[in-house]
Amino acid sequence: MIGKITWLIPDGFLPPKSTGEQISHEAVCVLNVGNEDADIRLTFYFEDREPMDRFRAACHARRTHHIRLDRLKDSEGNPVPIGVPYAIEVASSVPIIVQHSRLDTTQEALALFTTMAYPVE
Amino acid sequence: MIGKITWLIPDGFLPPKSTGEQISHEAVCVLNVGNEDADIRLTFYFEDREPMDRFRAACHARRTHHIRLDRLKDSEGNPVPIGVPYAIEVASSVPIIVQHSRLDTTQEALALFTTMAYPVE
Amino acid sequence: MIGKITWLIPDGFLPPKSTGEQISHEAVCVLNVGNEDADIRLTFYFEDREPMDRFRAACHARRTHHIRLDRLKDSEGNPVPIGVPYAIEVASSVPIIVQHSRLDTTQEALALFTTMAYPVE
Amino acid sequence: MIGKITWLIPDGFLPPKSTGEQISHEAVCVLNVGNEDADIRLTFYFEDREPMDRFRAACHARRTHHIRLDRLKDSEGNPVPIGVPYAIEVASSVPIIVQHSRLDTTQEALALFTTMAYPVE
Repeated sequence: MIGKITWLIPDGFLPPKSTGEQISHEAVCVLNVGNEDADIRLTFYFEDREPMDRFRAACHARRTHHIRLDRLKDSEGNPVPIGVPYAIEVASSVPIIVQHSRLDTTQEALALFTTMAYPVE
Repeated sequence: MIGKITWLIPDGFLPPKSTGEQISHEAVCVLNVGNEDADIRLTFYFEDREPMDRFRAACHARRTHHIRLDRLKDSEGNPVPIGVPYAIEVASSVPIIVQHSRLDTTQEALALFTTMAYPVE
Repeated sequence: MIGKITWLIPDGFLPPKSTGEQISHEAVCVLNVGNEDADIRLTFYFEDREPMDRFRAACHARRTHHIRLDRLKDSEGNPVPIGVPYAIEVASSVPIIVQHSRLDTTQEALALFTTMAYPVE
Repeated sequence: MIGKITWLIPDGFLPPKSTGEQISHEAVCVLNVGNEDADIRLTFYFEDREPMDRFRAACHARRTHHIRLDRLKDSEGNPVPIGVPYAIEVASSVPIIVQHSRLDTTQEALALFTTMAYPVE
């Protein structure tokens, strides 16, 4: 089976400001090339508080899901905190591939960055 | 032989808008350092529809090919959908190295991102 | 245990100029998913002088730390040199994951880049 | 010994245009944490012509070298072609770590991208 079930992303941050029509945001982009749907749990680590571990998402078999972190809510309705450094653990029920990207329009124009997440197992 | 025959890229997106002279686009950049030409098949995965798997490209021996995804057509003349999240599988007849980049001029100025694709086998 | 204890980043640079409210900077983003605090030593390599190896930082258990390199001081109070190419070695007492990002506002708007660091052991 | 002796970078391009004071350029950023100087050979692969393989650079022991590709000349005085897609092979006499970055000021503001190169052996 292709991919890994756990992925880590140290540099997470939701910019509190946007300019123009593009909203600053991050996405955890998942690809599931297998034949089984992926049940995904996301844990957010912080610098000065306990991790938040009640976020869920899905990626169907032979589909991609670009999970928008600015729209994600945990099982109690809490969003991912804005303007605060965090890190992300992505744990899936089946092997997936994970890439993390940010679009930042804090200042004029827009900036993008991306990287493959770090594969654990 | 150097490289891998299958590569995966979860975060694909062709921005529908451009400003200035630079057209927003993505490129799948292939390097073939071997002595045999590479026959390449690209499959695009989506969030809510079946994959499109009839895209072909080539990279000659000891050459690079920066495959522009905004110009690619499949065997039936279909382009890669614009403004829609997708993921990419790159499968080659011989080992290659794959990097994926996006140039986004949706807003003023331009933004770039890149990452090595995820090597499978 | 998850992660590695040594990570390397060849492309380091603190831009001497900023525009707008965003200060140009780099961050070494550390994630520690283990149960033991990480004691971290950073060594900076240069093109034309001896390495500086007296920088320290920490990342508590189950926490992240986005270490701002423009604010870091070594044990003698020296900052990381500005406007000079450098490379970074991150050595930790326990396994961590390391990602490196730069925010550059030298010219109008802002530019971002990021990459996972190179894991050694 | 830390690092690899061969690294590959599929997406190379020197933008022909710059705006503002920042010159569009690429850099192959090398880190040599060993005790022996690195003698480095760079080969550039193209889409439609033979590779150029007479570029040399160095990185001393315990030093970094951010090799500016817009200033590099081969043994016959030829520069790296501008405005043309290429790929890069970096071969070193001793193990090194290689990261590749581009600064693009083709349009207003500046854009940056970076990635670790692909390690071969």
